[in-house]
Amino acid sequence: MSIDRPSKIQATIDLDADGKRFGALVVPHSRNDSAWGSIRIPIAVIRNGDGPCALLVAGNHGDEYEGQIALRDLARTLDPVEVSGTVIVLPGLNYPAVRSATRCSPIDGGNMNRSFPGRPDGTITQMIAHYVATVLVPRADLVLDLHSGGKTLDFVPFAATHRLPDKALEARAIAAVEAFGAPVGVVMLELDAEGMLDTWVEGLGKLFVTTELAGGGSSTVRSNRVAATGVRNVLKHMGILRGEPEIAEPSRMVDMPDERCFVAAERNGIHEPLAELGDEVAEGQPVARIHSMDEPSHEPAVYVARRSGVLIGRHFPGLVQAGDFLASVAVDL
Amino acid sequence: MSIDRPSKIQATIDLDADGKRFGALVVPHSRNDSAWGSIRIPIAVIRNGDGPCALLVAGNHGDEYEGQIALRDLARTLDPVEVSGTVIVLPGLNYPAVRSATRCSPIDGGNMNRSFPGRPDGTITQMIAHYVATVLVPRADLVLDLHSGGKTLDFVPFAATHRLPDKALEARAIAAVEAFGAPVGVVMLELDAEGMLDTWVEGLGKLFVTTELAGGGSSTVRSNRVAATGVRNVLKHMGILRGEPEIAEPSRMVDMPDERCFVAAERNGIHEPLAELGDEVAEGQPVARIHSMDEPSHEPAVYVARRSGVLIGRHFPGLVQAGDFLASVAVDL
Amino acid sequence: MSIDRPSKIQATIDLDADGKRFGALVVPHSRNDSAWGSIRIPIAVIRNGDGPCALLVAGNHGDEYEGQIALRDLARTLDPVEVSGTVIVLPGLNYPAVRSATRCSPIDGGNMNRSFPGRPDGTITQMIAHYVATVLVPRADLVLDLHSGGKTLDFVPFAATHRLPDKALEARAIAAVEAFGAPVGVVMLELDAEGMLDTWVEGLGKLFVTTELAGGGSSTVRSNRVAATGVRNVLKHMGILRGEPEIAEPSRMVDMPDERCFVAAERNGIHEPLAELGDEVAEGQPVARIHSMDEPSHEPAVYVARRSGVLIGRHFPGLVQAGDFLASVAVDL
Amino acid sequence: MSIDRPSKIQATIDLDADGKRFGALVVPHSRNDSAWGSIRIPIAVIRNGDGPCALLVAGNHGDEYEGQIALRDLARTLDPVEVSGTVIVLPGLNYPAVRSATRCSPIDGGNMNRSFPGRPDGTITQMIAHYVATVLVPRADLVLDLHSGGKTLDFVPFAATHRLPDKALEARAIAAVEAFGAPVGVVMLELDAEGMLDTWVEGLGKLFVTTELAGGGSSTVRSNRVAATGVRNVLKHMGILRGEPEIAEPSRMVDMPDERCFVAAERNGIHEPLAELGDEVAEGQPVARIHSMDEPSHEPAVYVARRSGVLIGRHFPGLVQAGDFLASVAVDL
Amino acid sequence: MSIDRPSKIQATIDLDADGKRFGALVVPHSRNDSAWGSIRIPIAVIRNGDGPCALLVAGNHGDEYEGQIALRDLARTLDPVEVSGTVIVLPGLNYPAVRSATRCSPIDGGNMNRSFPGRPDGTITQMIAHYVATVLVPRADLVLDLHSGGKTLDFVPFAATHRLPDKALEARAIAAVEAFGAPVGVVMLELDAEGMLDTWVEGLGKLFVTTELAGGGSSTVRSNRVAATGVRNVLKHMGILRGEPEIAEPSRMVDMPDERCFVAAERNGIHEPLAELGDEVAEGQPVARIHSMDEPSHEPAVYVARRSGVLIGRHFPGLVQAGDFLASVAVDL
Amino acid sequence: MSIDRPSKIQATIDLDADGKRFGALVVPHSRNDSAWGSIRIPIAVIRNGDGPCALLVAGNHGDEYEGQIALRDLARTLDPVEVSGTVIVLPGLNYPAVRSATRCSPIDGGNMNRSFPGRPDGTITQMIAHYVATVLVPRADLVLDLHSGGKTLDFVPFAATHRLPDKALEARAIAAVEAFGAPVGVVMLELDAEGMLDTWVEGLGKLFVTTELAGGGSSTVRSNRVAATGVRNVLKHMGILRGEPEIAEPSRMVDMPDERCFVAAERNGIHEPLAELGDEVAEGQPVARIHSMDEPSHEPAVYVARRSGVLIGRHFPGLVQAGDFLASVAVDL
Repeated sequence: MSIDRPSKIQATIDLDADGKRFGALVVPHSRNDSAWGSIRIPIAVIRNGDGPCALLVAGNHGDEYEGQIALRDLARTLDPVEVSGTVIVLPGLNYPAVRSATRCSPIDGGNMNRSFPGRPDGTITQMIAHYVATVLVPRADLVLDLHSGGKTLDFVPFAATHRLPDKALEARAIAAVEAFGAPVGVVMLELDAEGMLDTWVEGLGKLFVTTELAGGGSSTVRSNRVAATGVRNVLKHMGILRGEPEIAEPSRMVDMPDERCFVAAERNGIHEPLAELGDEVAEGQPVARIHSMDEPSHEPAVYVARRSGVLIGRHFPGLVQAGDFLASVAVDL
Repeated sequence: MSIDRPSKIQATIDLDADGKRFGALVVPHSRNDSAWGSIRIPIAVIRNGDGPCALLVAGNHGDEYEGQIALRDLARTLDPVEVSGTVIVLPGLNYPAVRSATRCSPIDGGNMNRSFPGRPDGTITQMIAHYVATVLVPRADLVLDLHSGGKTLDFVPFAATHRLPDKALEARAIAAVEAFGAPVGVVMLELDAEGMLDTWVEGLGKLFVTTELAGGGSSTVRSNRVAATGVRNVLKHMGILRGEPEIAEPSRMVDMPDERCFVAAERNGIHEPLAELGDEVAEGQPVARIHSMDEPSHEPAVYVARRSGVLIGRHFPGLVQAGDFLASVAVDL
Repeated sequence: MSIDRPSKIQATIDLDADGKRFGALVVPHSRNDSAWGSIRIPIAVIRNGDGPCALLVAGNHGDEYEGQIALRDLARTLDPVEVSGTVIVLPGLNYPAVRSATRCSPIDGGNMNRSFPGRPDGTITQMIAHYVATVLVPRADLVLDLHSGGKTLDFVPFAATHRLPDKALEARAIAAVEAFGAPVGVVMLELDAEGMLDTWVEGLGKLFVTTELAGGGSSTVRSNRVAATGVRNVLKHMGILRGEPEIAEPSRMVDMPDERCFVAAERNGIHEPLAELGDEVAEGQPVARIHSMDEPSHEPAVYVARRSGVLIGRHFPGLVQAGDFLASVAVDL
Repeated sequence: MSIDRPSKIQATIDLDADGKRFGALVVPHSRNDSAWGSIRIPIAVIRNGDGPCALLVAGNHGDEYEGQIALRDLARTLDPVEVSGTVIVLPGLNYPAVRSATRCSPIDGGNMNRSFPGRPDGTITQMIAHYVATVLVPRADLVLDLHSGGKTLDFVPFAATHRLPDKALEARAIAAVEAFGAPVGVVMLELDAEGMLDTWVEGLGKLFVTTELAGGGSSTVRSNRVAATGVRNVLKHMGILRGEPEIAEPSRMVDMPDERCFVAAERNGIHEPLAELGDEVAEGQPVARIHSMDEPSHEPAVYVARRSGVLIGRHFPGLVQAGDFLASVAVDL
Repeated sequence: MSIDRPSKIQATIDLDADGKRFGALVVPHSRNDSAWGSIRIPIAVIRNGDGPCALLVAGNHGDEYEGQIALRDLARTLDPVEVSGTVIVLPGLNYPAVRSATRCSPIDGGNMNRSFPGRPDGTITQMIAHYVATVLVPRADLVLDLHSGGKTLDFVPFAATHRLPDKALEARAIAAVEAFGAPVGVVMLELDAEGMLDTWVEGLGKLFVTTELAGGGSSTVRSNRVAATGVRNVLKHMGILRGEPEIAEPSRMVDMPDERCFVAAERNGIHEPLAELGDEVAEGQPVARIHSMDEPSHEPAVYVARRSGVLIGRHFPGLVQAGDFLASVAVDL
Repeated sequence: MSIDRPSKIQATIDLDADGKRFGALVVPHSRNDSAWGSIRIPIAVIRNGDGPCALLVAGNHGDEYEGQIALRDLARTLDPVEVSGTVIVLPGLNYPAVRSATRCSPIDGGNMNRSFPGRPDGTITQMIAHYVATVLVPRADLVLDLHSGGKTLDFVPFAATHRLPDKALEARAIAAVEAFGAPVGVVMLELDAEGMLDTWVEGLGKLFVTTELAGGGSSTVRSNRVAATGVRNVLKHMGILRGEPEIAEPSRMVDMPDERCFVAAERNGIHEPLAELGDEVAEGQPVARIHSMDEPSHEPAVYVARRSGVLIGRHFPGLVQAGDFLASVAVDL
């Protein structure tokens, strides 16, 4: 069926009126424990007259927290008189995943960020994606989607955009990344971009900024500060808030040119990192070891960087499985 | 039944001969998927003549990794000629929990560190505790039990002992803690010490050192280095390895005098830390907030330190439930 | 793939011969616990010469019982000589859900009444829907689908039809609803009718009658009597059984004109009904409260009727979640 | 170990001061998802000077709601100035079961009402029982424990006491039952009373009243009214509240002399009740049938009353298993 | 608590009257899905006047079938006139395990054959064991407990007894084993006999015969024939049935003198048997290999017989875990 | 979407170079426990110059072991110098199912052998099928897919092909089946061939041979020998290995002309086989009985052969459910 069919999701608030409103996107959900049930996804709209519109998203993956905290704070504290234009805030997009503290939805297993543009008659995750893609994104001039590493990854805090065919749009996106003001800024070449919110928004020719702000399924004072500042910086950059972005130090801008930026595990065991986020590593330098759980007498397997650069991501949990991501290295632009 | 009855657990190696041996403690375990099955807990013994005996334990809780890595490394690399006396290494004590990356055993739910001195005819966790309590601890002059925060807690790296009725033993234990050489050393007054390995060993008048080395169910280059150095330092302190402990900087020695050192959550929500491990905090200073998941318009609840001191532990996950530990503060000795 | 492809489901009995036969619809189902397995859905056919054909269905949702009991009784006791025409009885349509006492299928999660017309190569639920839609419904002049509230809803006993574009069909359906003889008769405007058996049958221009007979996942002497009488009444109305429908009192005919007939919960807690099924309620009158589980000192939330009318449905369980249906109100035709 | 050892449970409020306080009983609970976690059981105390003390309990089983609603209302609305003496309110005793809407605890499977007097070092359920038995019951002159049928049983609303060896206590208990003012009052001979709160309280020579107020895991306007009125009636009867109990109609007092009062299922299938709560039934009269799910052609099994009397309880769910309770009949005193 | 307290289990039939009766042992079982529920364990008694009493048991482990089939057949077909004395038949002892096709109980995880003599107030498994130990075994002169390998083991069909301190009883037991007439007869030295039905019965000085008849969680025409013939042979041997045991070929009598009769796996992988049941194997001869699942290039591990003799048991499933039993070898008596 | 889109699966080895290489097919798999994870399916390629290419597959269903063992042995021991052409070995095709010892994938429930030709953007099972169908099969002249009965079926060892529209291809396939050299060879008429690897390969006009080698989720010395010999025999038949197939005795060639070759259960209970694999059975001869678990007094249901012939397959587990396959009979060609 076509994505042009209308969504069954209803907003409990007016998305287009002036002022500040909190409400919910109501997704019908008939199930064993609630025959005529629904899911209520929190939403807030702050609007003050005409002007640019920013759609701010967190909880695209349920176990990533900096964005969820920063957007709740922003929505609660932002006064409409501060705003020129519109801010739409979705602080917990994949709300079933948010409630269960998981990356993907506990209802249908859906990875929200591989579900765009969704389907009006699909699974719960697809229905939510479809509403965002067809109702909210069209209202927006910029979409800011706040990610972190979640329970299984950890990152040096960065904002990011992609190599885009439309070079003017790419340049504007890089400028927005720089305005976010994270310690690092990344220009990524996605190997598999199908189904991402990023791809959908960029395909419409709109500005899109994403982030990876830390990880482990936790947050820190520092990473929360990066998120809170970055969100307001982007709104200032868009002219929705007054003033200049607060940038203590310009972002280190880096690139991930090919798949040699990634190191993956080839056996199961106990994960020992040998380099930390932000370390400079040289090609061939060991970045992680995997120890046998069963056989302490066996030598651990050693994994090395496949490129020289800065370590921007790593596997988080103490156990690792064959096939898991271990580390990623980026190079200066 | 009495703990004096013999264990059904069998070691596959000689615990008392000279040289280095890797083997297993075999725990009989009849179950649906293996009628005549067993569990094999890794063990290594490195012995060189008479001398003191150290029992080194990690994986008492399955999701704590610094000790598991350090002890596997030690067992693999230690040459018997370096040793005077005996080192018994249990790198994954609650092995079913280790395999499932959980604090407690997936078989019987048992928290190993509340199961001592165990029972020879009890659950799997109790049988293992009983074997350690009655077969291994009696051989040891010192027991070093390496803990970290696991998936739900995070700590500034510290070694620790307890206030003990035997003040001479307490003084020797504090000396061993200092020899470990972690950034922080803690003298703890346990509120509920029943069933801990600590209590069992101390009750026998033996030296006992424990640690909390970091947390989140991960490990870092730094926390692994603290563990690896600390383990060898303690063996040197005992005279089992030659040389002096390597101590870059003496541990900051702190105390946890009463329950006001702890802050607990009273509602569910998203956890935002407002102070980080190692921060100095003042009584009444906010250390964490809890945001409503469902209602972004609600004010977050604020939790404050109930004592002035250094923040040595905190809740790790992004979500928090009413009743969860949020933060702990210690004061200088 | 097209719904025109043949079903893989086989009936073990002749659907078209005279007499009475009990058998099964055999659905192939290869799975871990039965590599060459199948599901057997009970079916009975009672036929006596040419004449109208009624397809009687229960267990469309697995946790609704009045219809399941009434159709088992009917199939067991009906003598073909009483019949003029054909009665096809499916007393447990979503048989996997019937066995597990759930609304939806435990195999694929499928809500049978959102799966029509199904797919010959789809999930088990879709395969069953497709067989009914393409093999059984074409044989029928009338389909009677017996629902109740299931474990999470409760209703005043009613029979129902819908507003239909074909007004002649609508009038015939209202007459059949009246012939059923439940205490209440409802003319519903379905907000989301896609995938329902109702929609498929009505789309073919055939008579369709549905019911909601009580709820809670139980049944009562009274609600079972409504079902048993109603089924035979409809067969009499169709001329398949002899005699006139037994109607003690004509059904109160009501309408559900818009979404204000529904009240939904916006928070979690303990559900306290303030009005009962059959009560007359006024717009603005409280119909339910939700108490905080955690905080007995908090005021309960109060939910009011959004229309004046008769309360025909309510939430059943003692706990309620944000998004759950709380109450429905209908107005006299 | 002895029940005389102190509980590890701590109340966050003073149990003995004048005024009204809401708080929690904090039960330490170390587990995989919260290493230093706890459970918080809601409690309220309303006290005004010396005088009798009533301990009011609901949520002994988690899926029984009339008491939970009535006690939350009472605690919220009761003004200390109305009170002479003390009212201790536990509106959700087995709080883990309350949260999961189950009869027994999801943590340890414990049936709270078979766990008294509990153990200070036992499972969570046993620890809670021990705290109530050793800390709260000793403060009380009367304990009122509000039960309903839960998800699997349904009852005519009744209050109840037991045949007691101390006939003076029995007479006082019968008077308290009559003061409760439910439609029915039952004097029960428990066949297996070990571990019940009832037995513990009565063994201490204290007044004890219990109830069964309806069932199905829901509540009704009527059953909630019986609970709310009954609770205040008992407090008036005790002299804690002023005034006389409100009794529209004296309770019908009945007896359950032997096991012939119970009818149990001997096969699996679909449950059809043939008599309803409050019906007069004669010995040998059918009270339920069980239909075969798989084989609609099989005759249903019929179950008859084994005594003449009034039907006061029945199986609730639509499915029934061999061994399930089907119906209970009581006879007039 | 003492095993002398009475059982809460009730038999629905008279255990001591003449004639044939089928009934159930009713075990009270309050649980979430049946508040006043019970478990019904099938039992049959066939009695004809005074004479010896045999207690025949199958389903001690739920996934072993030859005994369950043979005893159902015997109970159904045995005419009391054929009998002199009493035959008590329990064809599915651990009935919850029988229904779930598992070795141990799905309710409490209990291994029935490590639960004797049980507890009247214990778990369901312990309550059943206690009833058998204290109500049924005292009535019996001989207990025949029919085991097979279940889902994880496979055996050459054998009957067995143990080395007993009472040599006269041992000799009578060996004679009963020979009378059973299986292809092999084994005199076992149990390494851990605590909690077995065997131990309880033998401790009372009564005859006890056990079997292992095949395995894999299936049965064969041959193994069912061994069971059916063996059961009647033992009844003839006891004088309960007329005539001589039918013994085509005397059992090969073997011994299992020490733990070298067992071979256990020390790694995980795919299990390849290198010898089959009944094969003569020499000490050091490979009996199984374990292949790496992940790494096809790795050499498989080879496991050898630790004694010369006949292979009487082996691991059944295609996968094997470290600690699983692989093979057992017995030597001729 | 089209199957023509490229796969996201990457091989870690060169599929087309000379020599022997072990590696993995890496399937990207983002999930809750590994955000950037993947699945690694073992593969080996042995190539020596131009010549025919055989694709050898096992683990199409995860609980079938003869092929998994034989192909691991072959890959490990085959020297490229023995080979003329190419051998591609997939010893564990549905690798998630192999690891969990299940027929279908634990990730998506997918039955691999109903998933061809798969989808590049589908579930994990569909993605693997698509890679095989579009990357590996096109390289092959012959595909040999080694099946056994798995945990729920058991077979006399046979190789098989199908009736094919292309009679020349059918004749070549029958010759390849005969070359395999199993005790039995079967020419099957598949009733539902959609989605099978067989159908995809045959549709491309390539040679395809399948097997059923035993079952029960185990393997035997004999069945492993049939697999090991058969695999090398087929490679010889293809000219990839030198020499003639080793055939001790020509396969008995049989046919399965219609659905009367199958017997299915119509009730639940305990399964008793009355005929064994390889037995000659006559039409109407009992081949299995099903005993009531609950009611030992009930007569077992008897199931008879619907054709005369040889019993080549049967239900394996001790329990059986209505709808399960019980037995299959084949007739001589």
